[in-house]
Amino acid sequence: MGPGIGATELNQQHAYSLGEFIAEERWVLLTGGRNVGVMEAASQGAKSRQGLTIGILPTADPTELSDAVDIAIITDLGNGRNNLNVLSSDVVIACGMGIGTASEVALALKNQKPVILLTDNQNAQAFFVQLSPQQVWVVDSPEAAISQVKICLNSRSRRNLPHQVG
Amino acid sequence: MGPGIGATELNQQHAYSLGEFIAEERWVLLTGGRNVGVMEAASQGAKSRQGLTIGILPTADPTELSDAVDIAIITDLGNGRNNLNVLSSDVVIACGMGIGTASEVALALKNQKPVILLTDNQNAQAFFVQLSPQQVWVVDSPEAAISQVKICLNSRSRRNLPHQVG
Amino acid sequence: MGPGIGATELNQQHAYSLGEFIAEERWVLLTGGRNVGVMEAASQGAKSRQGLTIGILPTADPTELSDAVDIAIITDLGNGRNNLNVLSSDVVIACGMGIGTASEVALALKNQKPVILLTDNQNAQAFFVQLSPQQVWVVDSPEAAISQVKICLNSRSRRNLPHQVG
Amino acid sequence: MGPGIGATELNQQHAYSLGEFIAEERWVLLTGGRNVGVMEAASQGAKSRQGLTIGILPTADPTELSDAVDIAIITDLGNGRNNLNVLSSDVVIACGMGIGTASEVALALKNQKPVILLTDNQNAQAFFVQLSPQQVWVVDSPEAAISQVKICLNSRSRRNLPHQVG
Repeated sequence: MGPGIGATELNQQHAYSLGEFIAEERWVLLTGGRNVGVMEAASQGAKSRQGLTIGILPTADPTELSDAVDIAIITDLGNGRNNLNVLSSDVVIACGMGIGTASEVALALKNQKPVILLTDNQNAQAFFVQLSPQQVWVVDSPEAAISQVKICLNSRSRRNLPHQVG
Repeated sequence: MGPGIGATELNQQHAYSLGEFIAEERWVLLTGGRNVGVMEAASQGAKSRQGLTIGILPTADPTELSDAVDIAIITDLGNGRNNLNVLSSDVVIACGMGIGTASEVALALKNQKPVILLTDNQNAQAFFVQLSPQQVWVVDSPEAAISQVKICLNSRSRRNLPHQVG
Repeated sequence: MGPGIGATELNQQHAYSLGEFIAEERWVLLTGGRNVGVMEAASQGAKSRQGLTIGILPTADPTELSDAVDIAIITDLGNGRNNLNVLSSDVVIACGMGIGTASEVALALKNQKPVILLTDNQNAQAFFVQLSPQQVWVVDSPEAAISQVKICLNSRSRRNLPHQVG
Repeated sequence: MGPGIGATELNQQHAYSLGEFIAEERWVLLTGGRNVGVMEAASQGAKSRQGLTIGILPTADPTELSDAVDIAIITDLGNGRNNLNVLSSDVVIACGMGIGTASEVALALKNQKPVILLTDNQNAQAFFVQLSPQQVWVVDSPEAAISQVKICLNSRSRRNLPHQVG
C-alpha cells in the first residue's frame, strides 16, 4: 500500500524492491492495482521475479490497471475498496505515506492486521504506533520490512495457502 | 455463479465439470468463494485439474472459505460483493438459479457482461433473455457453456491475461 | 425502485403517484436518488405532498442528484449501492422493470424484504413469484401497491420510526 | 465521527453538545448510527433539540441502531461504510480519536471534505495537519467546532438543502 500519483522516487524504488522480495518468497503481492506510483512499482518488481500479483481496482475502468497485475479484481467501489485491500492481506506494508495510505493503515489496524510502516514520516510513525502499539512496526528498508513480515506470518496460522502481502 | 446452500445435486455436478473445463482451458475460475454449493463444486473441479481459483468472499469470516480457493478476496460487503464478482469476470456462467444468482445475473447484464444460463428454470430463461437478448445465452450442458464462453471471449479484446470466468 | 433512463411514461406516472401516496402516509420515500426516470418522478411526487425523501446515489457526482431529494447519501459504490437501497427499505416497490430493477428485486428477496411488483412484465412476475412466493406481490396500480405496503408493514415490528419505503 | 466503545466520558459530553448545536443550526446530523459512544451521544444531543438524525449503520443488524436515529441507512458493508459517512457529509467533525475515526478522517481528506479535529491527541493533530494543511482545523471545544463548520459551509456552494454534518 502506498501513494499513487504522489509517490516519491524513493517510495517507488522501495516498492519495486518489496515486489521482488515478495515474489522470491513465493508470497502473493496484493496492491490497489493501478498503473501509477507504489502500486505500479511493486507489481513490476514482483513480475520481474515471476511472482503472482493481484490488483484490487477502485474503478470499473480497465485502462487504470497495471500491466503487471495478473489477477484483476474490479470493484467500482471508489475509496471503499481500501477496506478490501487490507482485509485480503495477511500483512500490510505501507510504503510511503499519503491520505489514501493513511486510510488503509487505519482500516488495517481496525481489522486487526499487522502493519509495517516503511516511511520516514515521523508524524505518521508516532500517530499509528500510539493508536495500536501491538500491531505496528516501523522499518527503514525493504529488507527490514520483509524480515518483519516473516515474523508476523509465523505468529499467525493460516491454511497452507500462499500468503497474501499487501 | 450459482446457489450455495440451495444447490441441487445436478447443479453441483455441472459446477464441478465447469471447473474442470475452465482449468483445462487455462482460464482463471472466479466464484463467491464459500465452501458450499456451486461455489465449492466449481472450485474443487478446477483444482482437480490444477487450475487457478479466486474466491470473493461476502464476509470477513475465513472459515467460510473453500479449501479449493487459491486467491481469497475478503470483502465484508455482504451481498454487496455480488457486483464485484461479475465486474471481475470476463464472462459469467449461471449454474442453477436462486435469489442470489438472479441478482448476479442482473448485475452482470447491468455491467454489460455476457451471461450464459445453465439452468432448466424456464421463467429465468424467459425473463433474462427478454431483458437483454444480446447478452444472454441459454445452454443445457457444461460443454455447451464452455463453447459459448469461447465465442464470447473471442469477440472481446483484453490484455494478454488469463481470462477470468465467473 | 425502477428504471432510470429507460422508464416509460406510465412508469413515471405511477412513480409520481406512489411518491404522493407515500408522503400522505407520512412514510419516508427512499430511492436511488438520481434525477431521471422512476427515481425522479417518485421524489417529485413525494415533495409535492411535503414528504421526506432520501436518495442513495451510486456515484460521488452531486449533479446526478434529484432536486427533490432531501437527504442525500453519497456512496460512490456504483451498482454496489443497490444492496443498500433495499437493506434500508422496510418494503420495496418495483415500479417498472429493467436490468437494474431486477437486481434490486433479487437483492431485496435475498435480504428477506417484501417486494411489490407494479409492472406488466409477465416474465418478471412469473420469475420472481416462483423464486420467492411468500415475499412477492403483483399489483396493477399505485393504489393497490400502497394497500399491499400497509399489509406488509402491519405484519412487521419496527421501532416507532417513520417507515422507509423504497 | 468518533470512537464507539472506546469513547471517553469527555468525548461523549462533547458529542452530545455537538448534536445539540447542530440541531439548533437546523443542520442534519449524520453519524455511524450505532448505539454506543460518540455516535449515540451526538444523536441523543440532536434529538434533545428536535434535530433530524441520519445513521449509516455498518451491519445489517437493526439492534445496533441508536434509538435517536431518525433515518437509518443499513449498509452491511462493515468498515467499508466509513467512506459513505464522509462522502455524505458536507463537513466532518472528529470528536475524539481511535482507529476507526482515523480511517474516517483520512477518507474525508481523500474525498476533499473539510475536517475539524476536536481531540487532544497531539500526534493525530500533527499527522493530519501535515497530510492536508488546507483542509484540517484543530479546535478545543464544541463551540469552536461549530464556528469552524459555519466558516467551512460558507465557502462551499450547495443546493438549498439542509447541510449534512458528520
